[in-house]
Amino acid sequence: MPQNRQFLLDSRPQGEASASNFKLVTGETPPLQDGQVLVRHHYLSLDPYMRGRMDDAKSYAKPQPLGQVMQGGTVGEVVESRAAGFKPGDKVVGMGGWQEYSVVDAAQPGALRKVDTSQVPLSYYLGAVGMPGVTAWYGLNGILKPKAGQTLVVSAAAGAVGSAFGVLARARGCRAVGIAGGAEKCDYVVRDLGFDACIDYKQHADAGSLSKALREACPDGVHGYFENVGGMVMDAVMLRMNDFGRIAVCGMIAGYNGKPVPMTYPQIILRSRLTVEGFIVSEHMEVWPQALQELAGLVAAGKLRPRESVAQGIESAPEAFLGLLKGRNFGKQLVKLV
Amino acid sequence: MPQNRQFLLDSRPQGEASASNFKLVTGETPPLQDGQVLVRHHYLSLDPYMRGRMDDAKSYAKPQPLGQVMQGGTVGEVVESRAAGFKPGDKVVGMGGWQEYSVVDAAQPGALRKVDTSQVPLSYYLGAVGMPGVTAWYGLNGILKPKAGQTLVVSAAAGAVGSAFGVLARARGCRAVGIAGGAEKCDYVVRDLGFDACIDYKQHADAGSLSKALREACPDGVHGYFENVGGMVMDAVMLRMNDFGRIAVCGMIAGYNGKPVPMTYPQIILRSRLTVEGFIVSEHMEVWPQALQELAGLVAAGKLRPRESVAQGIESAPEAFLGLLKGRNFGKQLVKLV
Repeated sequence: MPQNRQFLLDSRPQGEASASNFKLVTGETPPLQDGQVLVRHHYLSLDPYMRGRMDDAKSYAKPQPLGQVMQGGTVGEVVESRAAGFKPGDKVVGMGGWQEYSVVDAAQPGALRKVDTSQVPLSYYLGAVGMPGVTAWYGLNGILKPKAGQTLVVSAAAGAVGSAFGVLARARGCRAVGIAGGAEKCDYVVRDLGFDACIDYKQHADAGSLSKALREACPDGVHGYFENVGGMVMDAVMLRMNDFGRIAVCGMIAGYNGKPVPMTYPQIILRSRLTVEGFIVSEHMEVWPQALQELAGLVAAGKLRPRESVAQGIESAPEAFLGLLKGRNFGKQLVKLV
Repeated sequence: MPQNRQFLLDSRPQGEASASNFKLVTGETPPLQDGQVLVRHHYLSLDPYMRGRMDDAKSYAKPQPLGQVMQGGTVGEVVESRAAGFKPGDKVVGMGGWQEYSVVDAAQPGALRKVDTSQVPLSYYLGAVGMPGVTAWYGLNGILKPKAGQTLVVSAAAGAVGSAFGVLARARGCRAVGIAGGAEKCDYVVRDLGFDACIDYKQHADAGSLSKALREACPDGVHGYFENVGGMVMDAVMLRMNDFGRIAVCGMIAGYNGKPVPMTYPQIILRSRLTVEGFIVSEHMEVWPQALQELAGLVAAGKLRPRESVAQGIESAPEAFLGLLKGRNFGKQLVKLV
C-alpha cells in the first residue's frame, strides 16, 4: 500500500491559529475491506469553517478531534476498489481530509460521489460546483429570495462562495454588488464575474466611509446581503439596508481567529425591520442536486469562471489555510497533491 | 371652549433626553367643524418609541416635528360631537397626544375608536388591550411562532409589552421566562402574571453571569426570545438560544438615549442558525382585531392583570417619560389627567 502523508490537529489554538497547531505524519494506508475504495487525492479543499472546528467550543459541528486527520473536502481518483460502482480511474469527490490518500466506505451516504470532468474541471467540485457554490445558491434562493431588479450585496466577493453568489444573482436579474479586499480582486469580480460593481474595503478606514461608497454602488439601497465576513463590513452594509431587507449569515470570518467581533448597530434590525438568518448548507441537502446542476451549467456556459489559489503539496496546507483566514487567497483555496 | 394645556417638542436631545426638550403651553381648543369630535383625555400613554421620534434621524416613523404637540396614544371621553356615531359620554381611544383635549376628524381611518369599559378599565386600552398588547401578540404569533412546551424569554417582562407577552405565551402552552429589573418586578411577573420564572438583571454584572442564571431558568434552552431592551440582556439570552431559535426584535431601549449599544456575539446567529427579525406593530394592522379580542378576554378572565405606573397631571408627563426610559416605571406608564 502507498505511503500516506497526513496532517493531524496537534493542539487547539489560543486565539489566532498557527502552523504549530498542525502536525505532519506519514503512515501506510490500510488494506481494503469489502465495500471500501482507496482514493488518491488530487486536491484538498481549504475552507473558513475549518477554523471553528479547531476550537473545543459549542458549535454546529463537533470539534475536530485532537490527534486525528484534519477533516475536509477532497477530489481525486480511485486507485483500487472493492466496492460496486467504483473502479480505478473514476474521478470522485468526498471528505478525505488533509492527507494524500483515503480509504472510504463507499456505501456510507454522501461519502463518495463520482463526478464528470468533461465540462467541469475536477477541482471545481470543491468550489463553484461544490459545497461553496451550493452555499451561495441556498443563501440566495432559500433566504434572500430576491425579486428581479433588486440589489444584492456579498462580502468576500472574490472568494469561492461570493463569486458563485454574484453570478447566480445576476442570472436572477438582480444587481450584484461585491465587497472585496484590493483592486485586483475587485477588477476580477466586475470583469470576469460580471458583477455590477465591487468595492475595495481596504480603501476604507471605517464603516461610515465604506457605507458611503456603498451608497454610490447601490442607488436603490440594499435589498439583500450575503454575509461572509462580519465586523466593519457588516456594519457598513447594515447602514444601507432597505426596509424589510434580508441578511443571510453564512460566515463571519473577521471573528474566527480570536475574540468575537461585535455588530455595532443592532438597532438597525428594528429600525429597518430586517430579517437576519444564519444557515449551514449541510442542513439543506435537499437543494444540492438542483443547485449543483445550475452551477455546472453556468460553468459550462462560461458565465461562472471561478478563480483558484493553488498551494503545491501537502506540506503547504497549514500556511495556505492560515492565509485564507487573513484573506490572502484569491478565489477558492486549494492544495494540489498530484 | 376649554383651556387646553399641551406639551410641545421644543428641542431635540443631544444624547440623553431631558425635561428641557419639552415646553408646556396653554391654548384654546378650536371650535368644531362638521365631522369633528372634541375629546377630553383621561390618560396619556407614554411609550419608549417616542424617544426615537424626538431625533431627526432616519427611522420607520417620521420625526416628531419641533414646536408641535408631542404625539401619542390617549383614552378619554367625548365632550362634544359634530360627527355621526359619536356622542358626549362615549369612551374613546385615539392618538390625541400630550395634551388635555384634542379635536379629531372622526372619519379619518383609525383616528378614534369607541371602547367598552364594562369589563376592561379605560386605561388598559393604552396597554394590555392596546398597542403594547398587540405588539406582544404579533411578536409571539407572527414571528416566534412557538410550539407548546417550548421555552420563551422576554425582557422588560414587567412592562406593558412584556407582561402581555408572558400571559399569551403561557396560554399557548409555553414556558415563559421573564427578565426584569429588581425583586419587586420579578415577584409580580411570577406571582401575578404566572410566568414560570423571572430573573433580576440588576443582580448580574455582565452577560456571562446573567446567562448562567438563564441556564437554570431554561433547562431546555431558549426557543424564542422577545427583545425589548438590547445590550447586555440581549447578549446573555443569545448565549442560551437553541439551534434554529427565533428572536423578535421589538425594542432596544438600552440604546435609545445616546449612542448605540452593540450586539457582542453576532456569530451566534450563524453558530445556532438563528432568525432575528425586527418589526413594528403598526405595519400589521390586520392582526389587531383578533389580538385585541384575545387580550380583552384574558383581562376579563383575570389572567392578565397589568400593572400601571400612573403620573398625575399633564405637567408630570416629561419626568414620567424620562423615568420610563430608565426603567423607573413598573408596568404601563400613564399620565392621568382627569
